[in-house]
Amino acid sequence: MKNEKSTPANRRNFIKKASLASAGVIGLGQIQAHNNSPVTKQLQELPNGLKILFQGDSITDAGRHRDGYYANHTWGGMGTGYVVQTVGALLGRNPNSNIKCYNRGISGNKVHQLAARWEEDCMQIRPDVLSLLIGVNDFWHTLTHSYKGTVKTYADDLRNLLDRTLKEVPDLKLVMCQPFVVKGGSAIEEEDWFPAFMAYQDAAQKIASDYKASWVPFQKTFDDALKTSTVESLCPDGVHPSLGGSYLMAQEWLDVFEEMMK
Amino acid sequence: MKNEKSTPANRRNFIKKASLASAGVIGLGQIQAHNNSPVTKQLQELPNGLKILFQGDSITDAGRHRDGYYANHTWGGMGTGYVVQTVGALLGRNPNSNIKCYNRGISGNKVHQLAARWEEDCMQIRPDVLSLLIGVNDFWHTLTHSYKGTVKTYADDLRNLLDRTLKEVPDLKLVMCQPFVVKGGSAIEEEDWFPAFMAYQDAAQKIASDYKASWVPFQKTFDDALKTSTVESLCPDGVHPSLGGSYLMAQEWLDVFEEMMK
Repeated sequence: MKNEKSTPANRRNFIKKASLASAGVIGLGQIQAHNNSPVTKQLQELPNGLKILFQGDSITDAGRHRDGYYANHTWGGMGTGYVVQTVGALLGRNPNSNIKCYNRGISGNKVHQLAARWEEDCMQIRPDVLSLLIGVNDFWHTLTHSYKGTVKTYADDLRNLLDRTLKEVPDLKLVMCQPFVVKGGSAIEEEDWFPAFMAYQDAAQKIASDYKASWVPFQKTFDDALKTSTVESLCPDGVHPSLGGSYLMAQEWLDVFEEMMK
Repeated sequence: MKNEKSTPANRRNFIKKASLASAGVIGLGQIQAHNNSPVTKQLQELPNGLKILFQGDSITDAGRHRDGYYANHTWGGMGTGYVVQTVGALLGRNPNSNIKCYNRGISGNKVHQLAARWEEDCMQIRPDVLSLLIGVNDFWHTLTHSYKGTVKTYADDLRNLLDRTLKEVPDLKLVMCQPFVVKGGSAIEEEDWFPAFMAYQDAAQKIASDYKASWVPFQKTFDDALKTSTVESLCPDGVHPSLGGSYLMAQEWLDVFEEMMK
């Protein structure tokens, strides 16, 4: 059940809700349902003060401001990748829920580097929802940085990190995002990545299932979009999505999140 | 309709159309006006290579990366305000149209400062669409920076800038965004701003009308949202929107743009 978030059936369900909401049937009383208002589509009411932490590598980091004026919680601190578009929609559609969103992605991170900063960058935040997108560097750096970790290292590190997290926050809601790569990207040598990287994706999915996490199938997001679009427009280097690619990721994430929060 | 290529977004759109139509909710021709699901809502097909320039002050700038890796065209160069959420949606929903988007907002700018850098930051780009959000500093800096300009200065500067632009790009599509302020914001002394600032808003709207520009009513965007939400969650200092506020701006902008491009 956790792995079938983004189906047409789910979308149809959502459509039903959306049109009921605009008819005022399930308007939740928060937002006036205007016919053509940007806020007509509303996620279900979220718990007040819900804390959502986005963790990962450069795809999550996305040049987020670490300090200064623009780093503030509600603005540049979210970066310019899928997180800012996701959080914008979460906040814009739920203006009264006082959600707190944190981006603590750091470029180049592998799982063991998350672990090294986990106390500060997860435990102290004590999120209600943890969204994790990690793995591409656990493989990539074996090609480019003489990193010696294997897929077993990746899986073990990830399980250890999750065990540690759940021990402290047992009621954590976990969103596991599929690490992905886009064939044809300028940084990707296809023969190096395939099928080796798929073992990392499989490991991540197995772990998501074992830990009853919600699963965001980003590889499918891109594979589907690429049937009619280009690598250049969605993810030029094969690893870092464009704004358009980030938009598609945000929609996929929001679909999964909405299902999870039902 | 022109949008029937089989992109993923279109397929989703089709599902949505079919579902709504079979439910008898709305006719197909009205779908877009009612459809606020960001992933299924698809703008009409846009001219290939369309160039859209976003110009303005800090609200447009929003901490955009000027240089380095993250500044690239498809990522951090758009900042973290309404522009990144607008452009993400434009690109994500139109993955084949090869739209080029530029953010050249600079914090603190008034109209005369746009004029001083217009050759480089507009003319050389030669946009097909110019979106302009300017005016809050033309007033604000009279309170805080001993700026001596009046509402007449603002209006004259703006007309001169537009005349100059249209002389070089006569078929330019112009999107004029309403300068706005949110009462109760931490940087706003209400008695200083009202009604004085409304004269700037009126001037901008009159100019938009005279120049047959599309008008984005951002004041209404915020006034409507504030009926059920808080200044803190939408625009804490009264001038710079939060991510949620930026999301609402992006939806408003996209609605106006879509109408304009019909």
